[in-house]
Amino acid sequence: MKNTDVLIIGGSVAGHTTAVTGKATYPEKDFLLIRKEEKVMVPCGIPYIFGSLESSNQNILPGDAMYEKLGIRYEIGEVTDLYQHKKTCITSDGQEIHYKKLVLATGSLPKVPKFLNRVKYKNVHVIPKDKEYLDDLVDQLNGGKRIAVVGGGFIGVEIADELNKKGNDVTIIEILPHILSLSFDEEFTMEAEQIITDRGVGIMKKTQVKEILGHGDKADGLLLNNGSELKADNIILSMGYHPNTSLAKSVGLKINENGFIEVDEYMRTSDSDIFAVGDSAEKRDFVTRKPTGVMLASTACAEGRTAGLNLFKLCALKTLNGTIAIYSTAIGEHGFGTAGLTEAKANKEGFDIIAGTFSGMDKHPEKLPGTNHQTVKLIVSRDSGVIVGGEVLGGPSVGELINLIGFIIQTKTNVHSLLTAQIGTQPMLTASPNAYPLIKAAEIISEQL
Amino acid sequence: MKNTDVLIIGGSVAGHTTAVTGKATYPEKDFLLIRKEEKVMVPCGIPYIFGSLESSNQNILPGDAMYEKLGIRYEIGEVTDLYQHKKTCITSDGQEIHYKKLVLATGSLPKVPKFLNRVKYKNVHVIPKDKEYLDDLVDQLNGGKRIAVVGGGFIGVEIADELNKKGNDVTIIEILPHILSLSFDEEFTMEAEQIITDRGVGIMKKTQVKEILGHGDKADGLLLNNGSELKADNIILSMGYHPNTSLAKSVGLKINENGFIEVDEYMRTSDSDIFAVGDSAEKRDFVTRKPTGVMLASTACAEGRTAGLNLFKLCALKTLNGTIAIYSTAIGEHGFGTAGLTEAKANKEGFDIIAGTFSGMDKHPEKLPGTNHQTVKLIVSRDSGVIVGGEVLGGPSVGELINLIGFIIQTKTNVHSLLTAQIGTQPMLTASPNAYPLIKAAEIISEQL
Repeated sequence: MKNTDVLIIGGSVAGHTTAVTGKATYPEKDFLLIRKEEKVMVPCGIPYIFGSLESSNQNILPGDAMYEKLGIRYEIGEVTDLYQHKKTCITSDGQEIHYKKLVLATGSLPKVPKFLNRVKYKNVHVIPKDKEYLDDLVDQLNGGKRIAVVGGGFIGVEIADELNKKGNDVTIIEILPHILSLSFDEEFTMEAEQIITDRGVGIMKKTQVKEILGHGDKADGLLLNNGSELKADNIILSMGYHPNTSLAKSVGLKINENGFIEVDEYMRTSDSDIFAVGDSAEKRDFVTRKPTGVMLASTACAEGRTAGLNLFKLCALKTLNGTIAIYSTAIGEHGFGTAGLTEAKANKEGFDIIAGTFSGMDKHPEKLPGTNHQTVKLIVSRDSGVIVGGEVLGGPSVGELINLIGFIIQTKTNVHSLLTAQIGTQPMLTASPNAYPLIKAAEIISEQL
Repeated sequence: MKNTDVLIIGGSVAGHTTAVTGKATYPEKDFLLIRKEEKVMVPCGIPYIFGSLESSNQNILPGDAMYEKLGIRYEIGEVTDLYQHKKTCITSDGQEIHYKKLVLATGSLPKVPKFLNRVKYKNVHVIPKDKEYLDDLVDQLNGGKRIAVVGGGFIGVEIADELNKKGNDVTIIEILPHILSLSFDEEFTMEAEQIITDRGVGIMKKTQVKEILGHGDKADGLLLNNGSELKADNIILSMGYHPNTSLAKSVGLKINENGFIEVDEYMRTSDSDIFAVGDSAEKRDFVTRKPTGVMLASTACAEGRTAGLNLFKLCALKTLNGTIAIYSTAIGEHGFGTAGLTEAKANKEGFDIIAGTFSGMDKHPEKLPGTNHQTVKLIVSRDSGVIVGGEVLGGPSVGELINLIGFIIQTKTNVHSLLTAQIGTQPMLTASPNAYPLIKAAEIISEQL
């Protein structure tokens, strides 16, 4: 029997951040992190191992050196059983580990509809966070292949663009009317589609895969709902992820209607000595308050920090009061960002909203070299004037601009106070002060309120 | 006698923004803007006409077309006299204009110590916002010249870098121990000095100009306080600006101890029918509450918006409650940003502060092409935990990252709540979620609180 104060199961971003923040907050406590993977991939970097990076070895989470420095113990292994009342876990090699606090950071697994029967074919792939699997896949897709990517969310789009860079012939198959449409309103998705098709990636929209076609263990194409067949040398199923909650379920921790482990604002599960963080932990939308299926490394980090801070005593202010999905993605030199509700989602949820969009340039004057178009859309609740969502497209500064909008949403800022908000502008780095799209979009909304 | 509802004197950023926001807010009112300049320069773009832009014609504020579209009248002319009690202005060509509300957006003029006696020499220059003067100057500095730039603030540094690009031999003379040191702490100014000297610009620090040397109407160098002489074909005096308040003074409007026109949170002067905005209007520091001499186009814009919104009725929320100087600058591919108090200034003002700095990378994993070092420093009031300042260096995303920090200061955010703040991260666009420098800097501070 081993003993530890804090046992963390899972070594990706959520588990890692919980360990680092927890040990910094409670240095006198013993921390033990158990993970399956010898080397942990940077999750959001995975698409880039297919093109921009030389190898997945350039995409490793720099955890172990930090653990050694901070005095966090870690082991490679798998926890197979949990005895909640004895506060004990059992590993696959028969170890018994007693904990005071347990953190479930068990992540998520690729989601594949059963009827697709993918396991039959060796050239039909998913994107798990598994280095060996991915290394093998990168080797197989090293140029000259016809590749079908099923699913036009972020992962699908980023991987398609990277595989295209490597000289493959790539087609995205998206069931919805537009790619990226769970995160962006139509006008933004159409811009993204234009950019990615200009780069040579094919897109088939409103298209459903009925069946994977093949002979023996080799798929050779897809049968689509319109009756046509798409030939492919390799097929990537990028159809989302489902939370990995088997341990939590085995002891009867509460699971929400979407299949995530229920947690409170301190990331405690229905057993207050067990925390859950990351893709397997419940998220409630910051604005709608409904459970949401968002899975983002940045969200996992915020959750890991929250759990780490609150392991042994609760701290006001250091809580997570609802999840704001703040994403960004890059297609070539173009950046897209989104935070909070889209206009479509806000309408669907029953909000009475006003949206305002302003398009300008991301440098000023616009004749400066390297200037990109920049568009900001804000979504505001009509009754309160509070900003509930925002979308941005532009150049490389979009990643931080959407973080500014994310913070504006977090602070429940009223659109009126944004009119006189102070910002800094610089010719080479931002839009001009009198055409700064974020404030101009707020003005457009304010005039209608 | 002409009549107008709102007379705006000055057509640069502050006057322009007041006109546009005012007309949008009060469309039934008549607006007349009078300015001296035929064509108005984008103020922050001026340094770039010396290198990156082909001509100053690429750096014109796009005002007139907008005025015509919005129904704002404008005239080129000069107001020479103001009769406050008759609510009347007189122009140099003898027009009498009666107003209901007057907006002074009279800007600032280059500051030059009298002993330098610059007017004697035709090759000693300042940087006014005067297109003809600047066009002539650009022609004179078109490569191959030895140029001394006196003053290492933003304008001096940006112009020096641009003139260096054009093949001139440029030296900055700075009286303080470091360039940019009114806006950045020493460790940031040293990085900037390293970058700009690597690019070929000379810097002389702790160096004061005693005298301009020359023969007839031609200067040929500078006599420095260490007794040495610096030869120069052209000399640019970039020693700051003073508010242009002659009209305001002529009628006895209150002027503050720094020489700016006193205003309240709605930008009203001591005569509540006269507003002042931009470089000539008083600014109070958001944190210290003391008058400050900051002159920024972005600040002028926020003031213009505030005045425009409040011309005929006061609006809560739409006020300017103290100025946060949010600046950024670019040197080559490197960006520097600052908002609120530096550590040095906070200490000097008597704050008990804790500073925290984290250095990381602006993409992740760091092996992605085009990755820059990124450093964030936060300055926090120890007693309250409130963030009072921040500084950043990095790549092109710095302009928006400093705007995020500026907004954090504006919302009086406690450093503890930043620990669990939600941000979005993306490999090509931002730092990694578990090493996002803004949050890591907050962690470093929080551990000491």
